[in-house]
Amino acid sequence: MTPEQLKAHAARLRDLAFTDILAETGRDAALQFSAAGLGLDARRQRIDLRAWRALCDWADAVDAPARLAALYGGAIVNGTENRPALHPACRKANRLSDEGLADVLTHTRARTAAFAEACDAPGILGGHPVRRVVNIGIGGSDLGPRFVYDALKAFRRDSMQVWFVSNLDPADLDDALEGADPRETLFLVVSKSFSTQETLMNARAARTWVAEHLGEVGISARFAAATARPDHARDFGLQEDRIFPFPDGVGGRFSLWSAAGLALEVGLGCKVFDRLLAGACAMDDHAVTAPINQNMAFAKALIDVFNRSGRGRSSRCVAAYSSRLERLAAYLQQLEMESLGKSVTAEGGGLPDNYSGALVWGGRGSDLQHSVFQWLHQGQDETPVDFIAIADHERVDDRIKALNANLAAQGAALSHGRAGEGECAAHKAIVGGRVSTTLVMKSLTPETLGALIALHEHKVYIEGLLFGVNPFDQWGVELGKALARDILSGDMTGFDGPARDLARQLSLDQS
Amino acid sequence: MTPEQLKAHAARLRDLAFTDILAETGRDAALQFSAAGLGLDARRQRIDLRAWRALCDWADAVDAPARLAALYGGAIVNGTENRPALHPACRKANRLSDEGLADVLTHTRARTAAFAEACDAPGILGGHPVRRVVNIGIGGSDLGPRFVYDALKAFRRDSMQVWFVSNLDPADLDDALEGADPRETLFLVVSKSFSTQETLMNARAARTWVAEHLGEVGISARFAAATARPDHARDFGLQEDRIFPFPDGVGGRFSLWSAAGLALEVGLGCKVFDRLLAGACAMDDHAVTAPINQNMAFAKALIDVFNRSGRGRSSRCVAAYSSRLERLAAYLQQLEMESLGKSVTAEGGGLPDNYSGALVWGGRGSDLQHSVFQWLHQGQDETPVDFIAIADHERVDDRIKALNANLAAQGAALSHGRAGEGECAAHKAIVGGRVSTTLVMKSLTPETLGALIALHEHKVYIEGLLFGVNPFDQWGVELGKALARDILSGDMTGFDGPARDLARQLSLDQS
Repeated sequence: MTPEQLKAHAARLRDLAFTDILAETGRDAALQFSAAGLGLDARRQRIDLRAWRALCDWADAVDAPARLAALYGGAIVNGTENRPALHPACRKANRLSDEGLADVLTHTRARTAAFAEACDAPGILGGHPVRRVVNIGIGGSDLGPRFVYDALKAFRRDSMQVWFVSNLDPADLDDALEGADPRETLFLVVSKSFSTQETLMNARAARTWVAEHLGEVGISARFAAATARPDHARDFGLQEDRIFPFPDGVGGRFSLWSAAGLALEVGLGCKVFDRLLAGACAMDDHAVTAPINQNMAFAKALIDVFNRSGRGRSSRCVAAYSSRLERLAAYLQQLEMESLGKSVTAEGGGLPDNYSGALVWGGRGSDLQHSVFQWLHQGQDETPVDFIAIADHERVDDRIKALNANLAAQGAALSHGRAGEGECAAHKAIVGGRVSTTLVMKSLTPETLGALIALHEHKVYIEGLLFGVNPFDQWGVELGKALARDILSGDMTGFDGPARDLARQLSLDQS
Repeated sequence: MTPEQLKAHAARLRDLAFTDILAETGRDAALQFSAAGLGLDARRQRIDLRAWRALCDWADAVDAPARLAALYGGAIVNGTENRPALHPACRKANRLSDEGLADVLTHTRARTAAFAEACDAPGILGGHPVRRVVNIGIGGSDLGPRFVYDALKAFRRDSMQVWFVSNLDPADLDDALEGADPRETLFLVVSKSFSTQETLMNARAARTWVAEHLGEVGISARFAAATARPDHARDFGLQEDRIFPFPDGVGGRFSLWSAAGLALEVGLGCKVFDRLLAGACAMDDHAVTAPINQNMAFAKALIDVFNRSGRGRSSRCVAAYSSRLERLAAYLQQLEMESLGKSVTAEGGGLPDNYSGALVWGGRGSDLQHSVFQWLHQGQDETPVDFIAIADHERVDDRIKALNANLAAQGAALSHGRAGEGECAAHKAIVGGRVSTTLVMKSLTPETLGALIALHEHKVYIEGLLFGVNPFDQWGVELGKALARDILSGDMTGFDGPARDLARQLSLDQS
């Protein structure tokens, strides 16, 4: 499908009333999807059967199913870095055609599982129990584990608590160490390159803290690392048996399934981690086997691309109606925006307007109803919303019922709006006609959470295929790192006036 | 200035290189602003002196300075609800021309201060010290106090900890009560209407929890309320001397300075709260007295409107380089989007495209560099960024220096980009030419924080004047509330297929 054809579908559908869109025969069945404990309802999208078929044909025309299968088998899908994308293989190594690599992944998994089990006994810290685990990592080495640890609070090991330290602001590490007993504290340093500035500086500060309290002798038992560069971790002083490698082909933002998810395996226990992986595998199986027009991952990708590229919507709001899913939006923000925030094709060519990732933002409902829903209902910019619901909660509580009633109400309000009445009628009118998708999780378990994350990983890859971009590189972050190094070296000669003035204000101009 | 004139300035400036924009004589001085411990540098905006003068003339033409002064004096600025906007008066009651109202505000402030002081002694809870304070509120009764309490962690009272409960998900209250001693726990119920569904349901659950542990007799000492409807609070069972009123003219998202900020006055102590108010007052004084072209609040408003309405930028990213300011973006998101997310003028007429609030989003640097900066640098959508820096930290730490070097580097990278070189040159190229504003706080104190918040309140009001919208109402949130009530009542007759199906999935279809 050309960009013009895509926009023609959007134009055709632009001014239809939602009641008319909903009335189309056969559409109800076509736009609902079910897989791995999740249900997706796309009926509140401005899409009819003709557009839906055209979208499915597009995915077929770019050979998306075969290319998704190739990703699973370990093919080189990241052209600029000449790498495969191994996140599905971390969940199930025997997907790989490369048996040697599969063995490596299986072996590492056995090591992390054994380590996680051992953390529940006093041996690891030389006789002391692990009460506090501090994950030091940033970006992909932080957002995934942090989100999942929050989400699965009900499944945590009672014996310990995991803290996450990412930012260079010393307040991060201070908070994580507040009230900590150094004897009972384990640090996990997670960095793919093991050269990330934030992570190494915080790891050094943590090492100093341990040494101050327990002496140098206390350090080695209290540090473990997950990295694609074990050599660097060794240089940092880590013990060989505390270094857990993952391959270069695991991108940071896709890495929680690998050794980079060590904090989860330790903090939740490896059985819960297994369940998370199993849920993701169930979604994997669906994504590679279901026909495009019944495939939830394809549906999510096609809908989001239609809104972005066809309808020109510049952002998407993710509203998860669960306090435990508070960090979902931040997680998806990275996954999607770092993957698809590109301006050239995989071959380095130009892109049509809006043929790359949209802005992703959001938070938790019903809180968002009291902050941004005014803007969603009455602002000038229609913004697609993803509503995430949990059908069955562990307990019965009238607040849960009210929470879910609010969710159901908001989708309907966005679709249909309401005419203003009486005094200030123009101010009360809600135009409606605004699109949303509803994703229902049967319940919040490791399995459904794994499936939810895998769903979004697949949809990002499929979007990459539709846009024609490589979702696995991130060259755009290098310049800022290089300039920060220059500033820290005290050499401001290459910088402009605002940068030099700022460096002076922040006392950076002389190192 | 007409929308066409505004766009003509944007068009004229669109393709200039930043080095050329920066070279204009006189621009350096014109686009830097200083007030109340804050510095704002707008030189990385795509604005020249001609555009800047035109923007200032626009603010003058809509009589913005006089109308800002009128707001301060207590004039009716919220036409659809026939109310003044009293947030500056909460900081300094003697600004008001209505002396009776000023006395009411002063009297309430004396009562909240006395209560906050008393919370530091055992009397309040019938002999037990206050160790845990639970603020129950949502939206404006949550985001402001929560943000400030986080930001001023260094200024908290050691004797107690404040928790915030907003969401209907019972997990919120569960978390706040984990490990709490009922004897030492104080609940603050904050709701302007005292009829907010989330807040009342959580308050009832909290009351049940106290009764279960201490019996009905334990309840009255453990609940206080801030509300504009003391009658409803009394009906809920609150004691007269524990009800702290604030006027109808204080909007929820502007309310942290009023009794709605009780959690802050209790958790930080009233002296720190005084300092927060004093900092806001310093910004107030600047905003009402400085000429438009040297006025930080006007500058912030004019720049943001230029990007939104002139340059068509649909969102703005707020990147605060401080872990303590993590919630700034969420706070500003509500403040701006609920205020300016409108599609009619204050008189109910139509608006030109993009003449209303943009999307506001963000988080903390340097974390964001590892999640969304790829998109900001290489994505297709130029997005203005506000960098928030803290110049002086309490301590010396090389991580702070690195943090600020990263901040300075990112602004420069966005401005100038870099040509790609070598292999994959097209993938490495960063186009540059992307705008940002830098806001430097001298240090993170109650005063500078108050000034930062007040700055944004003023800029929102001024933007409202430029757009011609009423920033103080929020009619768009009513429909969702009404539909949620309908769903909870079990009557799904007015709903469409997707809503009925969802209600069934979520077990809402029979009450």
